[in-house]
Amino acid sequence: LRESFFTLRTVAWVGEGRVEMIDQTALPQRLVRRSFDSWEGVADAIRRMVVRGAPAIGVAAAMGVALAGTASKARTRAELMKEVEAAAEGLRRTRPTAVNLFWGIDRVVRAARSAEGGVEEVRGALVREVGRMAEEDVDANHRLGRVGAKYLADGDVVMTQCNAGALATVGYGTALGVVRAASEEGKCVKVIVPETRPALQGARLTAFELSRDGFHCTLISDTAVGSMMQTGRVDKVIVGADRITRDGHVFNKIGTYQVAVLANRHGVPFYVAAPASTFDLTRTHDQVVIEERAVDEVVRVGRRRIAPRGIGVANPAFDRTPPELVSAIFSERGPIESPVDRKIASVIR
Amino acid sequence: LRESFFTLRTVAWVGEGRVEMIDQTALPQRLVRRSFDSWEGVADAIRRMVVRGAPAIGVAAAMGVALAGTASKARTRAELMKEVEAAAEGLRRTRPTAVNLFWGIDRVVRAARSAEGGVEEVRGALVREVGRMAEEDVDANHRLGRVGAKYLADGDVVMTQCNAGALATVGYGTALGVVRAASEEGKCVKVIVPETRPALQGARLTAFELSRDGFHCTLISDTAVGSMMQTGRVDKVIVGADRITRDGHVFNKIGTYQVAVLANRHGVPFYVAAPASTFDLTRTHDQVVIEERAVDEVVRVGRRRIAPRGIGVANPAFDRTPPELVSAIFSERGPIESPVDRKIASVIR
Repeated sequence: LRESFFTLRTVAWVGEGRVEMIDQTALPQRLVRRSFDSWEGVADAIRRMVVRGAPAIGVAAAMGVALAGTASKARTRAELMKEVEAAAEGLRRTRPTAVNLFWGIDRVVRAARSAEGGVEEVRGALVREVGRMAEEDVDANHRLGRVGAKYLADGDVVMTQCNAGALATVGYGTALGVVRAASEEGKCVKVIVPETRPALQGARLTAFELSRDGFHCTLISDTAVGSMMQTGRVDKVIVGADRITRDGHVFNKIGTYQVAVLANRHGVPFYVAAPASTFDLTRTHDQVVIEERAVDEVVRVGRRRIAPRGIGVANPAFDRTPPELVSAIFSERGPIESPVDRKIASVIR
Repeated sequence: LRESFFTLRTVAWVGEGRVEMIDQTALPQRLVRRSFDSWEGVADAIRRMVVRGAPAIGVAAAMGVALAGTASKARTRAELMKEVEAAAEGLRRTRPTAVNLFWGIDRVVRAARSAEGGVEEVRGALVREVGRMAEEDVDANHRLGRVGAKYLADGDVVMTQCNAGALATVGYGTALGVVRAASEEGKCVKVIVPETRPALQGARLTAFELSRDGFHCTLISDTAVGSMMQTGRVDKVIVGADRITRDGHVFNKIGTYQVAVLANRHGVPFYVAAPASTFDLTRTHDQVVIEERAVDEVVRVGRRRIAPRGIGVANPAFDRTPPELVSAIFSERGPIESPVDRKIASVIR
């Protein structure tokens, strides 16, 4: 596999009732694909972070629902819809924070419900819808990439957090989509990558996809974010998002909030890149559940135990960045500039 | 070994020209002691962080100089002093940032120079001086612990960074000395411990010595510092220091600066606990060298590689917290309250 992440697909519907995903738990050591033919397999992959990143799990979950349809032995439409709804319910319970998961599941279930005809027509509607969703995701990333690229100058050093790249989406990426679009416009952009403990998506995924595509990137420990800002080595920050509420709060990978606070202190613009599917216009920030993940993610790195037994652990997977720290959000429908909480509604309807 | 870190010694002169240290690279898996009989061995131990923590390496380096004296075959005082000065020079080159290293070396060399008599008298002066330094270190920590304990309330949850515990000193600790002193006064204090990548002193050392001594501690990834503050789970921060310049800037383990910035944003007091030997009244903050350590610390955890090959890495070992972020410094000579830059000179003469 020597493909570029400009064109590679993280999640794909490969026909014959089969979904393929890059196994992100095996990176950066091995770039391997896993194949799934049941919604339960997809649910497990989402839970274990074989696939992760809000836009990627939105489409993956939708494809899981579609697999319930193609794998079904149902003879009647009612029976089939019952299985599809059960799969949707199971997939909704995998992870709580990224809104794209619920958006993707709801959208494909809606397509099935509104299909006219019998079992075959419903199956056809499911498959067509997930195909469209995958294409739209890549298209949205190219669009929001071009929106964000206008905010980057040739020579900029950009800090990101976690992985909001091709691997967090169906392809191309959100935050890293902006970096790719700037590069396609001929701008040289270098990237500083915090490793992003506990799951190390920065070190394992972002550094991997950027270096493979020939970008200059510098890996740092999460403790060095402040030092990089303080010594003037960061021009801009661009991150992705797992959910943006209607009051402009950005829920994203743990560590994002502290990057935003430090950027604010040092006058470094803090940008968020996210497609419309990441916006939750029905909720305010106090109505979002932040996932608490397993203790083992913190006390181990790989199989190696790094802490003594018998201690307490807190492992929130996401944090919340309030709107006053956000300089602009880049969506495929255009930029949302500060104050973002006042302007979201006019761009994302 | 079931000793408590209230009384255990990290570095000790054990007579017969031998220095013993707890091997901090083996923790938390194994609590083992290493024995050294040459200054070169001690220098290597400091470089590899077998012993680390500003007060501990200050005394360890001084003991290294003393070993040059006890191991010497010199027949004349002049010959002996030449060897002692050469060892001092070699030990000065091990690590650049913690001022205690230079303070410890200068102090023991001064003791040798001012000793009256011949070879045996100089050797005796070296050994007596390092014994005094070790005792004074523990004594200073008890004193500054009592100074700081006044600032803690029963039930406080304190966040620290790295390890400023018994393991960073000869014994008892600076930041954790304050926690121990509060506990000895009957106050229940819980501690939140960021793991402190890349070398993981929080996870490996602080969680170890605190849990062994029965303190309630909660380990977090370095990315979760902001989240803990934002969700109101931190009452106070207490860290140690590697060097405090006369203009009140605190050089300490990488990550400290961002903890201070976040504490400031959330109205959480940020305290520094450090003995007089950590103050550098001859320099301002722009005259301090921040050590850049090996790339391998960041791209590996233990033997496991966590990042792809061929990427850039930045690995500053320390950062700088400006005086406006420091609520108070606890020294054995009393508290230095905000604005610390104006008050250092009156407490540390």
